[in-house]
Amino acid sequence: MPHPIASPLAFVPFVSVDDMMKLVNKTGIEKVLTELAAYIEADFKRWPEFDKTPRVASHSDEGVIELMPTADAENYGFKYVNGHPKNMKEGYQTVTAFGVLSSVSNGYPILLSEMTILTALRTAATSALVAKYLAPTGATTMALIGNGAQCEFQALAFKAICGVDTVRLYDVDPAATEKAVKNLSSTGLNIVACSTGQDAIEGAGIITTCTADKLCATILTDNMVGAGVHINAIGGDCPGKTELHRDILTRSDIFVEYPPQTRIEGEIQQLAEDYPVTELWQVMLGQAEGRKDARQITLFDSVGFAIEDFSALRFISDKIKDHPFYEPLDMLADPDDPRDLFGMVTRRK
Amino acid sequence: MPHPIASPLAFVPFVSVDDMMKLVNKTGIEKVLTELAAYIEADFKRWPEFDKTPRVASHSDEGVIELMPTADAENYGFKYVNGHPKNMKEGYQTVTAFGVLSSVSNGYPILLSEMTILTALRTAATSALVAKYLAPTGATTMALIGNGAQCEFQALAFKAICGVDTVRLYDVDPAATEKAVKNLSSTGLNIVACSTGQDAIEGAGIITTCTADKLCATILTDNMVGAGVHINAIGGDCPGKTELHRDILTRSDIFVEYPPQTRIEGEIQQLAEDYPVTELWQVMLGQAEGRKDARQITLFDSVGFAIEDFSALRFISDKIKDHPFYEPLDMLADPDDPRDLFGMVTRRK
Repeated sequence: MPHPIASPLAFVPFVSVDDMMKLVNKTGIEKVLTELAAYIEADFKRWPEFDKTPRVASHSDEGVIELMPTADAENYGFKYVNGHPKNMKEGYQTVTAFGVLSSVSNGYPILLSEMTILTALRTAATSALVAKYLAPTGATTMALIGNGAQCEFQALAFKAICGVDTVRLYDVDPAATEKAVKNLSSTGLNIVACSTGQDAIEGAGIITTCTADKLCATILTDNMVGAGVHINAIGGDCPGKTELHRDILTRSDIFVEYPPQTRIEGEIQQLAEDYPVTELWQVMLGQAEGRKDARQITLFDSVGFAIEDFSALRFISDKIKDHPFYEPLDMLADPDDPRDLFGMVTRRK
Repeated sequence: MPHPIASPLAFVPFVSVDDMMKLVNKTGIEKVLTELAAYIEADFKRWPEFDKTPRVASHSDEGVIELMPTADAENYGFKYVNGHPKNMKEGYQTVTAFGVLSSVSNGYPILLSEMTILTALRTAATSALVAKYLAPTGATTMALIGNGAQCEFQALAFKAICGVDTVRLYDVDPAATEKAVKNLSSTGLNIVACSTGQDAIEGAGIITTCTADKLCATILTDNMVGAGVHINAIGGDCPGKTELHRDILTRSDIFVEYPPQTRIEGEIQQLAEDYPVTELWQVMLGQAEGRKDARQITLFDSVGFAIEDFSALRFISDKIKDHPFYEPLDMLADPDDPRDLFGMVTRRK
């Protein structure tokens, strides 16, 4: 609890998991995804303004813990995120996350937020935003292969942002598909549960893969992918973890967030280090070509980049100006005299 | 506030500024410094076990924001810390910090703690720990040049850990010295306020410099430093910020925490990239020589390393097992079914 002598400078707004859930439900999840995509698009369009670095990863046998920092002239943001595929079997989340937004001018944090939910939202919003630029015209059916924690967020983002009206679900575990069908049943989407990956992609102009194994897997084989589709590849996001057969990559035009990171973590870790890829921010600014024709296969090799988290933190920081979905956290020592930290400590009996 | 359906896994113990102050005062600050130094020493003595990386810094014209991660086989820790010299004039702290300790095996955070106070404590504990190995035998007088936020913590750490009984204070701003004299008046130390740096080092076997300008300064000139002293140089800790004249460095034997970081940030940024330095963990393990003779000048070129923060977080994490100086924070989304993040969100109305 705050102590009586603490100054307002000592407090950082904290958005808990419960606050985030209330904020999402109060606003409406499709509205959140649409608004969030606008923040992400605005930041992609000023890409050169950001300090960028590949994420700082600490790998162990069981998973990875990462810090993803970035900054513009005004704000600094970072996300802490883990990835532990074995967690699910032990009743933990594969991915949990939290993040901080700070003021560059004085270094003080201005927001601490849960980001497990927020990461799912920003990943889905980014996918749909990218598809807005790359998916074939009139694509209204999406295959969703991998029906885990990301699945429903992807479905609703594509509905809200790209006009998708039908999703075809497949997972190696039918219970996962069943859960997704139930969660999506009252969203207005047509939901089709499929018994194979091949079945799921039938008639789909957009194929989303979001599986979670920390392995080189082949969720899509070459013969499954026909001309003209857009592939939204979410799951291949760390060294040694891919979802697509290499032959699909060489038939596609590949679009990425930040090449130095994607070459380490994305599907393109299967290709040569200088294999040509297109940066999405350039497509959004009209400096590079997106989809060229109806038969082209476009591939978003999504790994998730720090700027998307930065956009998400900016979004939440703005959002809580109007909504009381936060609590002040006594996180920063702020003595009356900045040089008298010792006096502040010892006078607090 | 926690919501009724959240599981215990969702909560992370949070040690606020107020909790930290209460913990320090309840335990006694000298006892805290001594216990903390033991954690730091234990971790220095198993140095090769840690994942080490130089801090990840984001520089702006006005300051720096840094992330300092490290990990052993069991825990991962990182600290967020800013350094904004101009803050003090605007009524903000030059340095604020917080940190997180996590489980390597599942990636879940197990502690979020304020670290503005904790950093001051760990910096002082490290300085005194190092001096225990390097200071001349029987040194009981310390000069303390720079009487800002770090000053009193340094004085008490050297009292508790090295047996220092007299501190001679000097600051360019007499008000800072006055504050330190007042804060230290009832600690049992003999306090001498001095009007010049030259005066302060009179008879001192240990010289601590902890000033805060983001500039190449010369707090000590060559002719001020006589044979046989130990210099504890705290303030030179980022590129372009040093406190000692280069000639002092070449007359000293230099001891550092982590060479790749110290060469960028420490006093030795003034020297050649391959200038010989000794790593402190090797001294503590008896693998390298510390002080050789009574006339040698030893210099601890302190910049602060992630392992010290890791030790400090371990210390606090253990400490709150016995003391209720924390609150549970609803920071991690933890659905009953790990794959059903969406259901958890949308069912919370």
